[in-house]
This record gives sequence, structure tokens and C-alpha cells, in this order.
Amino acid sequence: MQQVDLILTNAHVLTMDESLAQFNPGAVAIRGDSIVAVDTATAISENYVAREIIDCHGNILMPGLVNVHTHVPMTLLRGLADDLRLDVWLLGYMMPVEREFVSPEFVQLGTLLGCAEMIRSGITCFADMYYFEEDVAIATAQAGLRAVLAESVLKFPTPDAQFYEDSLAATREFIQRWKNHPLIVPAVAPHAPYTCTPEILLACRDLALEYDVPLHIHISETASEVEAMRAEQGMPVVPYVKKLNLFEAKVIAAHCVHIDEGEMRTLKHSNVGVAHNPSSNLKLSSGVAPVKRMIELGLNVGIGTDGVASNNDHDMFEEIRLTTFLAKGTSGDPTTLPAVTTLLMATRMGANAIHVGDITGSLTPGKRADLILIQIGSLHNMPRFYRDPNGIYAQLVYAAKSTDVTDVMVNGQWLMRNQQLLTLNEAELMIQGQAVAHKIDQFLAIREQSVLSKLVAIGGAMEEESYEIQAKVSINNPESVFKALHNPAIEIIRHRHYRQYDTYFSFSDPSQGYIRYREDHFIDERGNTTNTRNRLTHIGPAREAELPQKVLLSRSRFLAPATHTARFYREYFKPAAEFEIEKERFRYLVRFHKTEFFINVDHVTKPDLGYFLEIKSRTWSRQDARNKSQLAVELIQLLGESSQQATTHDYLDMIQNDFD
Amino acid sequence: MQQVDLILTNAHVLTMDESLAQFNPGAVAIRGDSIVAVDTATAISENYVAREIIDCHGNILMPGLVNVHTHVPMTLLRGLADDLRLDVWLLGYMMPVEREFVSPEFVQLGTLLGCAEMIRSGITCFADMYYFEEDVAIATAQAGLRAVLAESVLKFPTPDAQFYEDSLAATREFIQRWKNHPLIVPAVAPHAPYTCTPEILLACRDLALEYDVPLHIHISETASEVEAMRAEQGMPVVPYVKKLNLFEAKVIAAHCVHIDEGEMRTLKHSNVGVAHNPSSNLKLSSGVAPVKRMIELGLNVGIGTDGVASNNDHDMFEEIRLTTFLAKGTSGDPTTLPAVTTLLMATRMGANAIHVGDITGSLTPGKRADLILIQIGSLHNMPRFYRDPNGIYAQLVYAAKSTDVTDVMVNGQWLMRNQQLLTLNEAELMIQGQAVAHKIDQFLAIREQSVLSKLVAIGGAMEEESYEIQAKVSINNPESVFKALHNPAIEIIRHRHYRQYDTYFSFSDPSQGYIRYREDHFIDERGNTTNTRNRLTHIGPAREAELPQKVLLSRSRFLAPATHTARFYREYFKPAAEFEIEKERFRYLVRFHKTEFFINVDHVTKPDLGYFLEIKSRTWSRQDARNKSQLAVELIQLLGESSQQATTHDYLDMIQNDFD
Repeated sequence: MQQVDLILTNAHVLTMDESLAQFNPGAVAIRGDSIVAVDTATAISENYVAREIIDCHGNILMPGLVNVHTHVPMTLLRGLADDLRLDVWLLGYMMPVEREFVSPEFVQLGTLLGCAEMIRSGITCFADMYYFEEDVAIATAQAGLRAVLAESVLKFPTPDAQFYEDSLAATREFIQRWKNHPLIVPAVAPHAPYTCTPEILLACRDLALEYDVPLHIHISETASEVEAMRAEQGMPVVPYVKKLNLFEAKVIAAHCVHIDEGEMRTLKHSNVGVAHNPSSNLKLSSGVAPVKRMIELGLNVGIGTDGVASNNDHDMFEEIRLTTFLAKGTSGDPTTLPAVTTLLMATRMGANAIHVGDITGSLTPGKRADLILIQIGSLHNMPRFYRDPNGIYAQLVYAAKSTDVTDVMVNGQWLMRNQQLLTLNEAELMIQGQAVAHKIDQFLAIREQSVLSKLVAIGGAMEEESYEIQAKVSINNPESVFKALHNPAIEIIRHRHYRQYDTYFSFSDPSQGYIRYREDHFIDERGNTTNTRNRLTHIGPAREAELPQKVLLSRSRFLAPATHTARFYREYFKPAAEFEIEKERFRYLVRFHKTEFFINVDHVTKPDLGYFLEIKSRTWSRQDARNKSQLAVELIQLLGESSQQATTHDYLDMIQNDFD
Repeated sequence: MQQVDLILTNAHVLTMDESLAQFNPGAVAIRGDSIVAVDTATAISENYVAREIIDCHGNILMPGLVNVHTHVPMTLLRGLADDLRLDVWLLGYMMPVEREFVSPEFVQLGTLLGCAEMIRSGITCFADMYYFEEDVAIATAQAGLRAVLAESVLKFPTPDAQFYEDSLAATREFIQRWKNHPLIVPAVAPHAPYTCTPEILLACRDLALEYDVPLHIHISETASEVEAMRAEQGMPVVPYVKKLNLFEAKVIAAHCVHIDEGEMRTLKHSNVGVAHNPSSNLKLSSGVAPVKRMIELGLNVGIGTDGVASNNDHDMFEEIRLTTFLAKGTSGDPTTLPAVTTLLMATRMGANAIHVGDITGSLTPGKRADLILIQIGSLHNMPRFYRDPNGIYAQLVYAAKSTDVTDVMVNGQWLMRNQQLLTLNEAELMIQGQAVAHKIDQFLAIREQSVLSKLVAIGGAMEEESYEIQAKVSINNPESVFKALHNPAIEIIRHRHYRQYDTYFSFSDPSQGYIRYREDHFIDERGNTTNTRNRLTHIGPAREAELPQKVLLSRSRFLAPATHTARFYREYFKPAAEFEIEKERFRYLVRFHKTEFFINVDHVTKPDLGYFLEIKSRTWSRQDARNKSQLAVELIQLLGESSQQATTHDYLDMIQNDFD
């Protein structure tokens, strides 16, 4: 007789192991954090003695569910904004709220709330991607759940980092500190190929390889993402990241909605785990991932809830059912993804997909004791048919609800008993969460009166939030600049000539920024207007970074095609003041010391401000910004002007300063 | 001050009325079975006094949900068989079990179980289509739910009727008896255009018009149904039933998955209510109905759970969420079907779709008091945002669960209070339900060893259960029959000549029927074989109806293409005995007195049984069978043979009789 700590007996045990063994009545013997044995109730009682024996009264005992993709702190944003266009939802609500509210405290509270809900839904392990991920780890460890937690890295400023180098450094420290935690697997999350530069992707891969941690990334979530990648790189997303050798790391690829047969085979060959998020993909209209084919090819596909802001809950039973329903409904074949397969995706296969299959995902001796009890004697589970051993999987997938989960254990520790949470104070968390929601409500109620939201409301706005180095000098002789451009150090890639008629609407509250209505008239070599384009832009207040030479500037810009007249927009936005600027612009895209810059030679004719030379370039990192700002200064000097008077002021700033 | 019976106050009232009025805190005043007033809590308390006032503690008070399409007694078949091909599921499980088990007692028990589950899910009204519908009515009235209950009429034999005339007569009596019931609206359900003859559809329409009751029918559920209709009638399903003037009745059209723009406009023009069943359509791989477009066109589209055998539950919250998810996910537009629209589909629009919108579906003075209370203070509903009045609809659709429903009232009567059922004994029902499930399990466990299920398991089986009149006589001189066929009363439509090589497998249990492996060799005018066809057929035991002249026979036949060799089938089916029959067949399709018959002149060569004349024709009704059997007798006489020796025996029966 072997001594163990705990025996769970008289259960219908679904091991979800390689042989799909079931024991009914069955039992599980647990010592410390791990499973020692899984067998019939008789065999366990004959071979093990335990300090504690729990009678499971014939309920289902199975491995805990694995939620392979979420942004758990966003639990605080449940129901913040729904039924909106993706850009309106993201740019008008999610990003501004995150920018304003996401802090270590927000992240911890959101994580605790999310963990409470996940425990109730039978989830014992999840894979996360967010900001302040170390705070997600602190809260998750407090809740007692197992998790693969990946710190996000993007080329844009984020709530927890101004530059990606900062995120990377923070991720490295996070990994070093949590690498050996019994519950937490730290990881790195380059957000997506379209939000990261190749340098960021490579740096994240190197970090993941250095510490042998997973790399969590969004891949091919929307059709437009794939289209853009094809347009820019001549290939879809998977080959692009493969070319960067990203798949040398242990990758978790979220979504994979728009991937083809070849991409699936690449993912399979590289042992990439796929996170399928059916509710989120439907609710945001992203589409339906080809899960049937992925499973046929032997890919490890897990199931995720995604963030609660796009779901709107952590109900894994709902996701499991939706996974099989969607695969059947879109394949025309009702035998697609039978219940047992979908339940495997939510357990063992999901654990494999997030690269923790060695320690969790099935009731197997040696694995951690991550398990749940489910009561399926309630009305919506009755009657039951017993002749088919697969019937129990169908019952769980098609009829059972998350509210049927009664008990949850992770790493040998009970997190819920008889539907009572043991590690978290649910009532307290809900009060705190509601207080945050109240503040966000107030913030948005004001903001919904805002200029930006009105722009967004009339459609078509696209965000361009970026760092840009920008330097402008007043010049006296444009001809000398044009001549100086024919310098062998400067390669002219493209050249355009146009007149710009700008109408700026300003508002009494300066934090609202400006709306610019711009007409571009393109001019050919004979001086004739060949084409026009009308655009509407919201320009947020400038946020300058602390860099030498004052040439770095970040602005959030939202662009929209201006399909209405200036008169319409005037009446619609009701500006406090209005300014008109007209200029003739000679715009050059050039390469200088292997770096691309835009050079504008502007003649501002209304008001008559004279000639200006403007140098601009996008940047994504602090080091890159330093290099480019230095090059911009050199470029100004090369063009025969002095960089001493360089400014980042817009023309509008100049006019307004005149007015003030 | 007006006197009422009951005031529900301090609730967040969602009226779902034409103006989508909300009152928070709001109240509803009820007298008898009806709503007297809906207003702010203050206004109600100032204008009404009540015998009883119930504080709703800020919970949601809204109209009960309307489940527009189900087969409620099938609740007893939950989880009976899942993840199967549609034909295997239907022919191998549903139909045999229904044939064996469906009785008035089965129907009442299943209805009570289904009603219990529907009440828990917040459903106050449903539209049903099944057999023994009067027993559905008795049980529904006992549960206290409101329902539109339609008795099924089909061209096949059903559990409650041998011929459609019997179903029609029973429906008429059912309608007469229940027409004025306060909860039940009796109705008629010609099952589907492909399971009904035009005569049946017309008779059902006439009955619906005569009593002004709804007509419930399945329309365009699967692509193959539409294809078949196009092949047979040269048009899709909606125009076909329109041509029969079916839409003169108040029609409830279930599914409408595969309909085009024109068909949608026809349905709209005819005020047909559409029942959308997203779970069922996905689980059975039928497809996704074009709900977005139907709603744009102004159709009344309601939401249904369909039968629990294909769902597998009555969870309306799941169906509502799936409805909006699917519409968003398949349209590429996340603003499609915002939460408020989907919730309208599940309430007021659903009530309109099943033609009871005048009495239920919204909290409107004068309508019946059909309402529910929902507690949304639990974890998965938190936090909540209040600034957007549509937020509450999104919360209910995207985050709330059916288990959040606490109280249900129908027709002014409480059916559930604090999640306790008041009209039904849940525990007792579950025990009774489980006893039935146990019997079905036993029945199927034996049957799964059966020949038919083995045939179905290897794929391709198609059922042909039908009534057929069949008469066979032994003849001496085939030439005289060929000559007699050139009679002006007989029009030869088609003629074929082939040799048939049949191998029959028989089994020790005669109730298993036979498997026939048949090779058809088609022969041209020069006597050469031009083509061959191999088919496998399961022939069930014959069931003869009591008709004069013994020429009517019903057999259930399952046909499958024989893609393997006879040797394979022999090893696979392991028959107890085997018989071979070879014959030469001259087959004529003729028209005689405006009626189509098949005439076979057979020369049975192995064993040498000589020549036979066989007359066959399909039939769907008792009267039609009488007419055709009379004509068949005349035909035999016209061909110069005596109908006195006519028999319905198959050649196999003749051989076996020889062996016995």
C-alpha cells in the first residue's frame, strides 16, 4: 500500500490521455502537487492509502480546461463597447481607455476578476498576452491558476513602455524572476507581425530561445492583415514570420483565421501551437479559422476565450461547443470535430499548444494535479444515454454548462469547492471592479462628446499613432535647396508636387486636438491639376519625447476620407475657431545614409509665412530615433540650411502663436 | 388609484416594445392574466394599488423569451446519438427509436421535461411540431407555458398515423378542442415540402385557413433539399410552396437556410414568420441562414432551439448569442445584428413570427403577463457599464447565461420563483426520463449489432420507406404480354432491358431483414451489355396493410451504392444463409388511366422459376392505394393474365418457401 495525500473516488473519470481511458467508477490518487495514479475506484483503494478520501458521488472528474489565448486584465472592460466597427471599437474605445487606465493596479484587479471567472468555468491553465505582465503573474499566482504569461512588445508606445526596447528589457527581467515558479511560465509576446518591426520580432525570438520560454503572437486574425502583408511583402503572414526564423522558438499563434494549406503545413512542421478563438473571431467579424483541416494535419490546436472585451466572457464550455458547431456548420460534414476531439483541444491538445503539455492537460500519473469536477445530474443534462462511451463527451460538449463545474484543483490545491471560491474574495473583487468601471464610464461619457468620437462616428477613420522625427526650418531660397538635393549622398526615390488647402477646426478644450480638412491638388509637370484628394484628420495634442535636438514628436492621428463638404464638417463639429492654410508643397521621398526621409519644400501662401524645409521620418525605437534625428540635422546642413532654428511646430502652431 | 393584483417594482424594466422603452427603476402592474401598466417605479406606485408588491432588487425584468421552433418531446432523446452523418443519425437512430418508442406517454413526459428546461432558460412561449400533439398540449398546459402546437402531417407512416388522412382528421379534432385555450394555440404542420405531397400541403393549408390557425413547416433546411426541388420542379422551395398558395395561411417557416433574395422577398410579402435555429443548423451541418438580409428586408425572424436531439438543449441564451455571432462572423460586419436586435428576435419579433404577437413578446399594457426576471450581478456579468442604454442588451446577449434567470411568469401565473419550479416536479420527471432513456439504450445496444446499422456504418445508405402497391403473377407466355402492352389504353413512357444478378444475405433473426447485393447489367437492342450498376439494399420485414386484393405492401428499404465486392460484404455481414437469384427483366414505365405504373416482365433463370408479370406503383394515401390496387388488377387482366393468383411475395420468399 502506497501512502498519498488525497484520493478522489467514486467519480466518472475521463483521463483525456493518449488512450482516452475512462474509469467509472474511477479514482485519482494525488501526492503533493502531482497525480500518482488514475484507475478504477477498486484498484486505487486496493493500492493506496490517503490522509483524505473524497467521494465524488459519480460526478465527472477530468483534467482542467486550458484557455490558450486571452488578455485577462481586459475582464475589467467587459461590455465596455459592443456591436461597433472594428476600428471604432479599437481606436475609439479600447485604446484610449487602455492608454488612460491600464496600470499595475488595473492589471492585477482585472487578472483577479478574470481568474475568478475562469475558475468557475473549469479553467485550470491559461495563456495570456498583455501589458504589465508581471502584475498579471502576481495576481494569477494569488488566484492559484497555472498560466503562460507573455509580456507584449509593440512598435507603438504602450501603457507600460514608451519604446520597444523598454518592453524587451522588462520582459527579460520578468522571465528571469519567474522562470522557476511552480505555476507561472513567463513568456514574450511580440503582439503581431503588423504591429512589430522585423527587428522586434527577431529580438523577441532571441529572448524566447535564450530562456527557452514560449513566444505568443497574433497571426492572420483578419483578411485585411493578410492582404496588407501580401501587398508589402509579397507573401502571407506565416511565410513572412517563418523567413524571420520566428518558429525556432516555441510559438503560440493566436487566431490563424486566414491561413492556407501551405501555411498550416509550415505551422505543423514547426510545432507551432494554434489558439482558436471562435467567439472573438465571430463577434469581431474576423471569420472562421480552418480548424477541421488543422486538426487533420495534426496541428496542436487549443481553444481560447480571447479578451473579455471581445467575447464577452471566459466561458470555456461556450467556446468548446462553438468550436465544434462552427467546424461542422462550415464544412458541411456533421462528423467533423466530434465531441471527444473538441474536448481534447480544450485539455491535452491545448496544453501541448501552449507548450506545457508535459505537466498538464490530462489525468496522467506524473503530471500536476490540475483537475475539475462536473455535476451533470441537472435538468439540462438529463436524460443520459450510456451505451456509447463517446456519449459522455457529447453530453459535456453539447449540453453541459460552465455552471455545472463544482470543484477545481490546480497543482494539488483546491481553488473551488462546491462552487465556493477558496483563494479569491469574489464579492470584494466585484466591488473594486465596479468602481473602476464607473470611472471608465465617466471618462467615456465625456469623451463621447469629443471631436475624435464624432469623427469616428461618421466612419472611415484609420489611426496612425506613431513616433516621427520631424524638423522644420524657415528658408529664404527654395531654389538652392532644390539644387542641393542633387547631391550624390541623397537618392531621390519619389517626387510629387501639389497644392494643399487646409481648413483647421480648433476647439475650446485644447486637449481635444484639431480637425483638419485637407484638399490636395496634385500638379503635373505642365502645372495642371491632375487629381485631387480630400481627407479629414484628427490631430491629437503632441507628445514630445525627451530627446536631444528636439526633433522627435509623437502624435496620434486619425485619418478619414472626407466624403462630405467643408460646410458639412463645420456644422457637424461646431469648432470654436477655424484657420485656413494654403501652401504649395514639393515632396521628395529620399534615401540618405541607407535611411528613408520625406523632404518637403513648402511655400505657405495663406497666410503668407514664406518658405520652409521640413524633414520627416517614422521611427519605432529610441536608438533609431537618435540615429535619425542626427541624420536629419546633417540633411538640413547638406541642403545648405542651418539646423539651429529647427522646430517641430506645425504651421497651425505658428499661426496660432501669431494670433495669441 | 387603480386596483391591480400584483406590482413588480424596483426592476430594470426592458419593455422590448416599439419604442424600446426602458425604466430603471421601473415597475409593471398586473391584473389577472394581463399587463395593466409599465412605467417608472414612482409612476406605478402613484397610480396603482396592489394586493401584492414584489421588490425586484434592481434585477432585469423583461418579456419572456419566445422559442419559435422545437420538437419538445425529443427532449427525451438528448444525447441519444451525436457527431454522425445526417442520414445515419436520422435513419439509424432517430426514426427507428421514434417508431419504437413514441407514444402519448412518451410525448407527455418529454414535453414536461422540455418545459421544465425551457422555463429555467427564460422561455415563456414556444412553437412545436411533433406527433401526438394533443398530448404535447396537455403537458404544456400542465407546465403553464404558452405555445403554438402543430400536429405533424407527412406522406410516410408516422408514430401516430398510418396515412396522412388520419393525421389530418386528428389535427382537425385537436384544433376544434383547443382553439380557445388561454395558453395553447393549436396548429397544423405539414412537415416539409419534400415529405408531403401537393395534396397534403393543400389540405393542411385549407385546414389552417378554415380555423385561422398557424401552419408550421420546415423550409429549405439543407442544400440538397433545394437541389432536389430544383431538379424535380425546376424551382427552389419557396416558389414551389407559393405556387400551391400555402402562404395564404399564417405560416411559420423553420430554417430557411438556403433561400435567395427573391425567396426572402416572397416570404416578407406573405408575412411568413421565419424560425432561425443556429445551433441545430451548425450541428447538423445544414449551413448558416441569411439572417442579416432577412432582418434588413423586414422579415419577422424568431430564434428557435429546434429539437434537443439536434442541439442538445433548450438554452435560448446560447441561441441568441449564436444568432448574433454567426451573423457578424459570416457578414464581415461586426455591427450586424446588434444585441438589441437579436434580443428583439427572441421576444417581440419572435412572437410575431409565430403569429401570437398580439398577446405576447413585449411588456405592453393589454398583452398577457409573460415575463422573466434575470439576476445579472454575478461574476460573469461584472463589471457593468451604464453610459450607453444599449449596454444592457449587450450584457444580456454576450455575457449573461440562462442560469441567471431567476423568475418566470406566464399568463399572470408564476412558473418559477427564485429558480424553483412551481408547476413541475423536476426530480420526479428526471427519474421517469432516465427510465425511458434506459429502455432506449437497451433497444439500441441490440440494434447496433444489427445488419442495418452495419450497412449504415459503411456509408451511403439512403432510405426509401414507402407504401407501394405490388402485384405479381406467374405467366407462361411473355410474348403475349409484350403484345398485349400495345394496347391504346397503355402509354409506354420508358422501357429498359437488363439482367439482374442478386445475392441475398439472410440472418438467423428474421426481424433483421435481408441484405441484397445486386448487379444490374443493362442490355441494348443488339443484346450487348452497355452498362452495369452495383447496389446494396437492406430490405426490412414487409408490413402489409389491410386492403382488399392483398396488393399493398410497405417495406423500409435502405439503398447504398455497392463500392466493394460481394466477397467483402459476405465477410462483413456474416450472413447465416445466402441465396442467388438471376433474372432477365423487361421493365416498362407506363401510364394507365392517368396513373403511372412499373410493369416488369421477368424471366427468373436461377433458380429456374419461369416467367412473371409484376405491377408496381408508389402510393401515399389510403384512398390512392385503393384506386391503384384496383387499376393494377385491371392492368393484369388487360395483359391477358389472371389476377386471381396475384401475390406480393418476393422471389426470395418463393425460394425460401421451396427450401423450407
